[in-house]
Amino acid sequence: MLTDLTLTEFLEKIASHSPVPGGGSIAALSAAIAASLSEMVAHLTIGKKGYEALEEEMQEIAKDAFQYRERLIRTIDKDSNAYNDVMAAFKLPKGTELERNNREGAIQEALINATLVPLDVARDAFKIIELAGKAVKQGNKNAVSDAAVAVMMARTAALSALYNVKINLASIKDTNFVKEVGNDVKCMENAIVNREREFLSDVSM
Amino acid sequence: MLTDLTLTEFLEKIASHSPVPGGGSIAALSAAIAASLSEMVAHLTIGKKGYEALEEEMQEIAKDAFQYRERLIRTIDKDSNAYNDVMAAFKLPKGTELERNNREGAIQEALINATLVPLDVARDAFKIIELAGKAVKQGNKNAVSDAAVAVMMARTAALSALYNVKINLASIKDTNFVKEVGNDVKCMENAIVNREREFLSDVSM
Repeated sequence: MLTDLTLTEFLEKIASHSPVPGGGSIAALSAAIAASLSEMVAHLTIGKKGYEALEEEMQEIAKDAFQYRERLIRTIDKDSNAYNDVMAAFKLPKGTELERNNREGAIQEALINATLVPLDVARDAFKIIELAGKAVKQGNKNAVSDAAVAVMMARTAALSALYNVKINLASIKDTNFVKEVGNDVKCMENAIVNREREFLSDVSM
Repeated sequence: MLTDLTLTEFLEKIASHSPVPGGGSIAALSAAIAASLSEMVAHLTIGKKGYEALEEEMQEIAKDAFQYRERLIRTIDKDSNAYNDVMAAFKLPKGTELERNNREGAIQEALINATLVPLDVARDAFKIIELAGKAVKQGNKNAVSDAAVAVMMARTAALSALYNVKINLASIKDTNFVKEVGNDVKCMENAIVNREREFLSDVSM
């Protein structure tokens, strides 16, 4: 599993001649990092003098962030596996018409799955921007730069995931699916960029 | 060393109650990821049909990206160590005036070091935006989403490092240092945001 590699090994594996792990797994990792940083800022706020009134809010951030981290860690491998499935479908035999039909069906199925995985990452990362934004606004002032980094990592995770959605959409033939997801992507892209800008404007140091 | 932890362990360590590793180490890691993705896109372009004329350019991207990766991997720990040195200086005895002077000197020295480490990360990440941007423009079209993710990771790495510079500047008493670095930060922040926008507008898929 990718998540069992050390940081050094993982970076080496990204840099290698193989297309996996690529941008999709990185999107999931960035979202997991953003969740982890939000969790840390919450922990650094809980029990601190001056922040007593925010105890419950911070407990909730820590709990939600932990759940996102757990889910997104699994998605690092899930995204690379989804890409490998697309590649495997392309390698199916295409000698007879039946084989060609089967192959095309398998490719389309794999592409739809490889689209849905980063779409979920984008949705999670979008919610993590909000968590991190709360940490910017209400968290321990000494950790405000960590909260700002969390906002930016979540933004880049979400936009990165959407690039992976878009590149797959270009090869998907189900026009309804393409249209629906395409609309979602546009709407999310704008919202992500705006929310990051708003939260970063709250950073005071 | 942080870089010997698995991804799962590293995320757990970020999320913990300790302020390190925090945003500074994450900035270095994001920059290293951006370098690694750029290296991958270069590898996926070299030797591919239709990209023969770009062979030399891609070899250079791969070489430069590898060097950034190597340096930035070491910076992940370096940044956390610099932060720990600041914390250690704050814990020095302050009973006598001599002790107070020594402590204040040690704090200021440690803060300046903890500012220079992320400043270097920001400079490296800014150069990696350019590498990744070349990968967007000229790299294998099948990997354009990976190159776009590299641009965004480098942008977030650079801005994140600058947040870590700024939070330290707020406690540094050397007004010349603060003014000079402060000017650098503003200039870089604008350039980073602009270059990311320009390169992402080149992404076609």
